[in-house]
Amino acid sequence: MESKYPTEMTGKPIRCKAAVARKAGEPLIIEEIEVLPPKAWEVRIKILCTSLCHTDVTIWKLTDGPAAYFPRIFGHEAAGIVESVGEHVDEVKAGDFVIPVFQRNCGECKDCLSPKGNGCTKFPVEFFGGMPRDGTTRFVDSDGRPIHHFFSVSSFSQYTVVDIAHVVKMSRDVPVDKACLLSCGVTTGIGAVCKIAQVEEGSTVAIFGLGAVGLAVAEGARLQGASRIIGVDINPEKFEIGKKFGVTDFINPTSCTEKSVSEVIKEMSGGGADYCFECIGLASLMQDAFSSSRPGCGKTVVVGVEMHGTPLSINTYELLRGRSILGCLFGGFKPKFDIPILAKRYLDKELHLDEFISDEVKLDEINRAFDMLHRGKNLRCIIWMDNYF
Amino acid sequence: MESKYPTEMTGKPIRCKAAVARKAGEPLIIEEIEVLPPKAWEVRIKILCTSLCHTDVTIWKLTDGPAAYFPRIFGHEAAGIVESVGEHVDEVKAGDFVIPVFQRNCGECKDCLSPKGNGCTKFPVEFFGGMPRDGTTRFVDSDGRPIHHFFSVSSFSQYTVVDIAHVVKMSRDVPVDKACLLSCGVTTGIGAVCKIAQVEEGSTVAIFGLGAVGLAVAEGARLQGASRIIGVDINPEKFEIGKKFGVTDFINPTSCTEKSVSEVIKEMSGGGADYCFECIGLASLMQDAFSSSRPGCGKTVVVGVEMHGTPLSINTYELLRGRSILGCLFGGFKPKFDIPILAKRYLDKELHLDEFISDEVKLDEINRAFDMLHRGKNLRCIIWMDNYF
Repeated sequence: MESKYPTEMTGKPIRCKAAVARKAGEPLIIEEIEVLPPKAWEVRIKILCTSLCHTDVTIWKLTDGPAAYFPRIFGHEAAGIVESVGEHVDEVKAGDFVIPVFQRNCGECKDCLSPKGNGCTKFPVEFFGGMPRDGTTRFVDSDGRPIHHFFSVSSFSQYTVVDIAHVVKMSRDVPVDKACLLSCGVTTGIGAVCKIAQVEEGSTVAIFGLGAVGLAVAEGARLQGASRIIGVDINPEKFEIGKKFGVTDFINPTSCTEKSVSEVIKEMSGGGADYCFECIGLASLMQDAFSSSRPGCGKTVVVGVEMHGTPLSINTYELLRGRSILGCLFGGFKPKFDIPILAKRYLDKELHLDEFISDEVKLDEINRAFDMLHRGKNLRCIIWMDNYF
Repeated sequence: MESKYPTEMTGKPIRCKAAVARKAGEPLIIEEIEVLPPKAWEVRIKILCTSLCHTDVTIWKLTDGPAAYFPRIFGHEAAGIVESVGEHVDEVKAGDFVIPVFQRNCGECKDCLSPKGNGCTKFPVEFFGGMPRDGTTRFVDSDGRPIHHFFSVSSFSQYTVVDIAHVVKMSRDVPVDKACLLSCGVTTGIGAVCKIAQVEEGSTVAIFGLGAVGLAVAEGARLQGASRIIGVDINPEKFEIGKKFGVTDFINPTSCTEKSVSEVIKEMSGGGADYCFECIGLASLMQDAFSSSRPGCGKTVVVGVEMHGTPLSINTYELLRGRSILGCLFGGFKPKFDIPILAKRYLDKELHLDEFISDEVKLDEINRAFDMLHRGKNLRCIIWMDNYF
């Protein structure tokens, strides 16, 4: 297949289909757009499939604020083939199988070179609606007007342009849709457990919110040998789904009338869970998670992006009793280093990924994926881009 | 000297001098009191010296709330000799050199047996004004009325009774006043660095508040090989003192007119300090510390006990960027395991303790120690109990 690359379009704009968000919260519109060629340090990727994450939905609903840009191409979980590369890119070449990731990893800055964390301080300014180095866009609509990027990925398009700091080369042994899963949500949940919390064998883990990220936390906890995995969700259907991912106990907050969820967890665990994970993005739930953690050593990991910008309020005495709160993006993983390891664990049949795919649609049906996520019915819906080679 | 123990007072009340707090915030009164014999699992200790910590002062000022008990004997940093022991105590015997510690360590519960943290869940109920097992007191005033305990220690008395879970046996090689320092503040600061934050060589550390605990954090950071130790204090005299403990840079918040303290720290450290320590006990300062920490990996450790009960408010997006907040009591150290290690490091001349003693007074002059701490002039004032053997 490599023989097709570079294509005859190298260096020229490519016309293709994309799902464009014209207004906050309104259905995406399938449009024909132009995707400009990659500039220096950039990669143009033919997207094979993408999937929808709650963060797309959260930002898509924003009518104002510094993160609200329209028109915009959402999407930040995807897998594809490098179509062409700009100047100075030698890490990947046309024809390579890659995933774009929102988490930057230049590999050169102080933070990328540090063994700790996964920050990257390559670019001092954050351009939320454009390319990371210059803030401009690579998408042009049929009227010649620019369309904004999202999270440096914008995968709801048959082609996108991504900075090389946001590209991870993948083994062709990994199926396309499984590779797509590794580009955000599932990786986030697993990293929160394995890298950030460093859950030990025999631990008790409580997970607030059993969406795909919460279930990825369960999968991570299973991998780490947790002995008890308590799932908290208002949707009782999530318990049966959760069992497949190792969830051993289930709490439905709507059924907790006489005791709070944290009191129930403390009773179940003899004082508090060793590790609590908030996977929804609500400050009040983060507080519940913190209150449910064990004094002396309990760790609460915030994984969800707070939906309303509400700050987290913490009782400092509860903190002093030896609890801690940790936050992470992308599970604390350095994409270029850690994703290939996860891919290998999948190929070695240690890590379960297939179970996260609950639905599949074509690009033209992308709004159905939004509907399903809204109704809380699905885990990950793979959106095939009708873009094969 | 051991030959004097057990004394002829074993099993009987002992009359001795104590500094009694009769009312919130009012000078302590030197009174003659009776100290009852130890019950089962208890130890009666002849206190040789004690010292004053900010937490004594914070609680002494409380006029109401669940922690306000009067009359009361404060004091929780001390060193002394076991006078007699109650039934079931075999860990120490009369004549042993010990320090009483507020941090419980039964050595038997799930948390004491865990390698993590320093919680102890031996006693399900917390009796703030009495003995930990039954809530009663061992102090009786000259009118035959009970006097409350403080933090399970109450060392502002020539004799006190302490549960065996709050007693650490010390080597007689450690000078009495240095042993006293290890019973709270200095240990707290060192543990926050070495055990909780686990500061690495070459790190940048920011310390908010250069009292004894903050300087113990500096001492810990020096031991761990931090390359830059930034001290933040509104008292400019603290810089010269701080230099002795390894502080390399000083920020006086009252001089930061154009930029916030956290902006100054971010500039000094190229993005944020690797480790920030709040050593005062103000929620606003905890926020400043958090904001000063490096995205991607910055850890903020809360060591100070919030003076006003104000909750800590955290921007969850700042948390998601890979920062974390950790709290600890007693520096996360398990007293019976970790204090002997610190004592050895002192005897091996690795750990500096002598520099923390700025003043010495006799029990009769104890209110002078309060005055000095209020004026921010001293580090630790050793209060000698006029109680030698």
